[in-house]
Amino acid sequence: MSSCLVGIDIGGTKLAVVIANSDGRILNKIRQPTKSYKGFEYAIRLIFDMIDQLLHLEQLTRDQVLSIGISCGGPLDTQTGVVYSPPNLPDWEAIPLADIVESEFKIRPVIENDANAGALAEWRFGAGRGYNHVVFMTMSTGIGAGIVVDGRILHGASDCAGEVGHQVLIPNGPVCGCGNRGCLEAICSGPAIAKRAQEKVRKNPHTKILDLVDGNIAMIRSEEVLEAAKSADPLALDLIKEVSFYMGWGIANLVNIVNPDIVLVGTIAVAAGDLLLEPIRRTVLEMSMQRPGGIVKIMPAQLGQHIGDLAAISLVV
Amino acid sequence: MSSCLVGIDIGGTKLAVVIANSDGRILNKIRQPTKSYKGFEYAIRLIFDMIDQLLHLEQLTRDQVLSIGISCGGPLDTQTGVVYSPPNLPDWEAIPLADIVESEFKIRPVIENDANAGALAEWRFGAGRGYNHVVFMTMSTGIGAGIVVDGRILHGASDCAGEVGHQVLIPNGPVCGCGNRGCLEAICSGPAIAKRAQEKVRKNPHTKILDLVDGNIAMIRSEEVLEAAKSADPLALDLIKEVSFYMGWGIANLVNIVNPDIVLVGTIAVAAGDLLLEPIRRTVLEMSMQRPGGIVKIMPAQLGQHIGDLAAISLVV
Repeated sequence: MSSCLVGIDIGGTKLAVVIANSDGRILNKIRQPTKSYKGFEYAIRLIFDMIDQLLHLEQLTRDQVLSIGISCGGPLDTQTGVVYSPPNLPDWEAIPLADIVESEFKIRPVIENDANAGALAEWRFGAGRGYNHVVFMTMSTGIGAGIVVDGRILHGASDCAGEVGHQVLIPNGPVCGCGNRGCLEAICSGPAIAKRAQEKVRKNPHTKILDLVDGNIAMIRSEEVLEAAKSADPLALDLIKEVSFYMGWGIANLVNIVNPDIVLVGTIAVAAGDLLLEPIRRTVLEMSMQRPGGIVKIMPAQLGQHIGDLAAISLVV
Repeated sequence: MSSCLVGIDIGGTKLAVVIANSDGRILNKIRQPTKSYKGFEYAIRLIFDMIDQLLHLEQLTRDQVLSIGISCGGPLDTQTGVVYSPPNLPDWEAIPLADIVESEFKIRPVIENDANAGALAEWRFGAGRGYNHVVFMTMSTGIGAGIVVDGRILHGASDCAGEVGHQVLIPNGPVCGCGNRGCLEAICSGPAIAKRAQEKVRKNPHTKILDLVDGNIAMIRSEEVLEAAKSADPLALDLIKEVSFYMGWGIANLVNIVNPDIVLVGTIAVAAGDLLLEPIRRTVLEMSMQRPGGIVKIMPAQLGQHIGDLAAISLVV
């Protein structure tokens, strides 16, 4: 009887379930909207249904499930498997997710926050293959990181290691979602870039950014800034220069403390490519120590939109 | 036949050799000045003599040496055992220290930089006992750190992890020994505190600091600043406030990235005690995220001047 692995990726917008063979090769997957307003009970029922549906499609039974990996937004406790109200799943307050899944499937699942699971996936399947010290840095709604050392996630004392987006760069700087001020995330996340762009465009409307949103300043997102920068719009290039300086500074500090072989930056850096990554690399080289700064590679993450599927599976492969 | 462990602590000012039983209990030790101007050959000969002398005193022979641990200033490569010109041992340029010791004793020694070995010693014998995630931070001529996770040193990709003193806090700030500007070390190390104190005293000579050096501003060191602050001298207290803010900021960033149970701060923090540590703790709580900042303890290092001896032994116990 062949066995299989189940991966569950829980996000604020969508739920994904994948089934893989025991080597981690994905056999099939399903996605459904999370409908987070419907609460936790709805989501967990839907996830169980999705698993059964996939098993049925692959002519497998619950008995053949070897392990279950779950990637979910943090904060969560990897030891107890309890999830503590992730920002995009506010209703999930102290949910004993591992216990619930275990009582349904008689298997104790492995649970990780999405940045850590993503780092493991990039190390195992993506641009981090072959490196011993890999950092995967998310750069979208938030900025976080998973740190993988010799194939193991660096969890820290309370599963909080890797909060690189909340290092403070500007005391008394812009307010951050975490309540502090001047965190890297409050300067360089997607919403932070959008906000800064909107402020600049209000003062100087002669920019391609404004054309891209049909003159509606409130509609400007980081995507428009990137697009305008690619066609050499001066205001957009100015913004990119600022963002890459602060990203480079934050990564330089991380490089001095953790000394990774490679830092893989997600979403926005993937979309921007060298337009953002080149100035980031120059800043890292300038602001970090010579030895750790000299060896580190700063690259776009590779797994893109598949990262969630692979992240959950990489926990149990 | 009983066996023993040998620990070698190599510093710019002194060399120490200790002999311990196989549990790590120190049996005897010797110290000698390094006389770094005499170069590497002199030092290594002296070290071998010191080992033989100690073995003789303890009625042991070279055959009874089970392992050899070496704690030395970095940069060095823990895999190859090559030392690359530590700042206080400039003559030690690409010295294959492990090979040299091995060819003399037929034992491959374990080599670590002093901050990492110190962290392991504090975890095993000092204030870090019982914790899984321990950071030991030096705060004297330089600022560095060793990070111990589950009893293992976090080395990083090129033995540079823990360079927490070279995170940049003030771009275009004071020049640092590493060549960059505005590193934590350039603001809060002993020499940096002394320099800042001298500048302040030049502008405002009405301070107890000046009495402590008989009016000779160039003689002011961090020690005088601490002493004056302990008797509530306003200028000294001002300096302590500045230093604790930047130390707290740097530690907060470290806490967000590494999430340790405890951060042990050496030399200057040990001498200053809560005068420095209390405001540091407040700043860490304020500038780090709630979960990692809420659990971390910030304490003085415990092993004091014995740390070098225990550091070398803790590598092989």
